[in-house]
Amino acid sequence: MFSQTVEYALRAMACLALEPEERTSSSALAERTQVPSDYLAKVLQQLAGAGLIEGRRGVGGGYKLSRSPEEINLLDVINAVEPLQRITSCPLNLESHGPNLCPLHRRVDRAIKQVIEVFEGSTLRDLLSGDAGDEWVSVPLCDKRQAVALTVNVAKKG
Amino acid sequence: MFSQTVEYALRAMACLALEPEERTSSSALAERTQVPSDYLAKVLQQLAGAGLIEGRRGVGGGYKLSRSPEEINLLDVINAVEPLQRITSCPLNLESHGPNLCPLHRRVDRAIKQVIEVFEGSTLRDLLSGDAGDEWVSVPLCDKRQAVALTVNVAKKG
Repeated sequence: MFSQTVEYALRAMACLALEPEERTSSSALAERTQVPSDYLAKVLQQLAGAGLIEGRRGVGGGYKLSRSPEEINLLDVINAVEPLQRITSCPLNLESHGPNLCPLHRRVDRAIKQVIEVFEGSTLRDLLSGDAGDEWVSVPLCDKRQAVALTVNVAKKG
Repeated sequence: MFSQTVEYALRAMACLALEPEERTSSSALAERTQVPSDYLAKVLQQLAGAGLIEGRRGVGGGYKLSRSPEEINLLDVINAVEPLQRITSCPLNLESHGPNLCPLHRRVDRAIKQVIEVFEGSTLRDLLSGDAGDEWVSVPLCDKRQAVALTVNVAKKG
């Protein structure tokens, strides 16, 4: 349902959120997120264009988040690469429908609305702390060793 | 968020649901759904392959639903052309994650789950009757004249 580009953008941002104060080289990002370098370069360009990350060339260069992880939600990330758009008027331009969606497009729009709500309600910071009630919490993707090292079992709440 | 193919498949099925007893020619379907004929032909083939519609050639031929509109939900339609799939294991194949999704993929999966629920909860019949509480009900897409003729105002419930 979500494109490869969206998946890769989310991976890259989650990876940068793990070390928000550090700059991460694009080659390290590519390795940790398992995204082909060329593809990742385009995604990073889109994320930078949207002001979510900033890159610096040269020694000690690389990418870092432009804002702190709690100030970037997943919808920001998705909208930077493939904006999620509600349906605001009849896609067939039927005059008799106009802004009053028919039952079909009302349902499609409802599905989009729910997806927006899920992603809008989660910041990059939330990805690092797990959900309340989770039996098991891991850190998003990135480096295997890191994932293993950071994997923790938390007591189930509720 | 949804592909053109999904949109076109939903339009075609909604259109056939308007007259479930009749056969509709592919040219009439193309006109009413505003879908290019070649593109529609491929979509209809997928829908027929999934057993949702059946076509007959020759005079009096055309397409009709294989089951009644209340026996086909929108998820059936989408799954016939581009199956919606939950995330059941780590997309990066991280051994330390496996079936225990990280917070990122858990959220992506939650979004997919909600979309599945919206579409699974609506049959083609539901599209013809509007939602309870709607101020305004129209018939999905298809022929403008038909849409105008069938547009009704219903008293707002609740």
